[in-house]
Amino acid sequence: MIQQLTIFGVGLIGGSLALALKEAGYCQQVVGCSRNSKHLQRAVDLGVIDRYTLDPAEAVKGADMILVAVPMGAMQTVFASIADHIEEKAVMTDAGSAKGSVIAAVKAVFGEIPAQFVPGHPIAGREKSSVEAALADLYVDHKVILTPLEHTNLDAIQRVREMWQVAGAEVESLEVEQHDAVLAATSHLPHILAFSFVNSLAESAQSDKVFHYVAGGFKDFSRIASSDPVMWRDICLENKQAILSALDDYQQNLSNLSQLISNEESEALLEAFTRAKTERDKHI
Amino acid sequence: MIQQLTIFGVGLIGGSLALALKEAGYCQQVVGCSRNSKHLQRAVDLGVIDRYTLDPAEAVKGADMILVAVPMGAMQTVFASIADHIEEKAVMTDAGSAKGSVIAAVKAVFGEIPAQFVPGHPIAGREKSSVEAALADLYVDHKVILTPLEHTNLDAIQRVREMWQVAGAEVESLEVEQHDAVLAATSHLPHILAFSFVNSLAESAQSDKVFHYVAGGFKDFSRIASSDPVMWRDICLENKQAILSALDDYQQNLSNLSQLISNEESEALLEAFTRAKTERDKHI
Repeated sequence: MIQQLTIFGVGLIGGSLALALKEAGYCQQVVGCSRNSKHLQRAVDLGVIDRYTLDPAEAVKGADMILVAVPMGAMQTVFASIADHIEEKAVMTDAGSAKGSVIAAVKAVFGEIPAQFVPGHPIAGREKSSVEAALADLYVDHKVILTPLEHTNLDAIQRVREMWQVAGAEVESLEVEQHDAVLAATSHLPHILAFSFVNSLAESAQSDKVFHYVAGGFKDFSRIASSDPVMWRDICLENKQAILSALDDYQQNLSNLSQLISNEESEALLEAFTRAKTERDKHI
Repeated sequence: MIQQLTIFGVGLIGGSLALALKEAGYCQQVVGCSRNSKHLQRAVDLGVIDRYTLDPAEAVKGADMILVAVPMGAMQTVFASIADHIEEKAVMTDAGSAKGSVIAAVKAVFGEIPAQFVPGHPIAGREKSSVEAALADLYVDHKVILTPLEHTNLDAIQRVREMWQVAGAEVESLEVEQHDAVLAATSHLPHILAFSFVNSLAESAQSDKVFHYVAGGFKDFSRIASSDPVMWRDICLENKQAILSALDDYQQNLSNLSQLISNEESEALLEAFTRAKTERDKHI
């Protein structure tokens, strides 16, 4: 049970967790904090949070669970604003899509990573990232990855774990670098490819015709290009090395494929496409 | 009204058209022809075609409409097998995803393009391409692009047009080269990118972890990588130039984006992602 959950950044991610915990009767009070009173009031109106404050110090007062779910670029500022006000009983976690940079931000603020900080990443999302898009069942059958460090408090890990499980998620753990590499490949890379794909079409000579005839495959393929640009800009900067590495691998693979087409290497093309279909059908 | 529609290659595309025309009472008889009697018997059992033959000459006997819906690589063989047997009343069309190469195949067989041949391309599909996947409403609200040549018979164009309209499609026309460039960008390119994406992940150092944590974006983005490898091998070979050109544009765009990430050009990244989101939201 959580007595007071304080959420920094009450959008899709924080809002959905709040709804799920309320629905499960697992949390007595949810307090929201951000820099935007209009958004926070809307979250109150929607029944997502119970009350809000614009003052970070006041927000963490009485909190036994703190979730920082702001865009990656704003993490350090939020941690700095609460560092001196967190109560001893409080467990802290976050929802950042890259863990290495959040851990670096926490370290920069606290000097060393507090034992009650449990880095986390719920792998769930929608194109819309506002509190209006929050869903009580967003996390059902979705994974949440925790990346605790060696000295992270075991009780803190268990409390964060249980919170996400109550929201319906399957909680697993990875090492920080492993998390960042895996997410770069499975999530960050396809978003970048989709953004690039839409821009490439938009810049083509006959872009009006192109968009008039977009086929079925286009819609699914480009869906993630409708994601929040600020969030994805931040992710690119915060998980830069792992993303550049995944991008390199991809560009190499695509160049090889392009070469096969150029050389009309029929058998090798068929083999490449068959391998891709087999891998996808096996895993999805 | 069509008296006898003969379909070469009774799979998803031909089968769905047959079902739609039968449902509309627009076609008295549908005859199927391919090299596989088991597939054809299955099409009869499913009520998709009325009868079948393995003999192309017999198949086109009595046909006033002929649809060639075989994989692109088999087009020329099929046209060669019927060239001497087509009745004067017959209109011919095809369903190839690239038009330049089909027209070249027809020219190679007939010496010049027959006036009653109307090159066509229904822009619809599913991952499954067998007759079992055929749907009477596959073409509803989908586009069919015709690419008639200067000397194509106007009555033939009108008959093909009406057939697809009865099946629920919106029929438009494009020049051959324009069609091939537009489809390379909107359909062929994303398929190649998706195949390459899945292979790139499969070849990565920690591919087991990668596939374990595939996120929501991955599923939609990679859906088209489950498409028929033979069909897409053929398309890559048949629409080679337009595809290589679209691939070049894409690779250039992706390299630029990669450079922005590498240089941490925050503003330019945000601008690129915002442009992509705006374009997609505008057109989808």
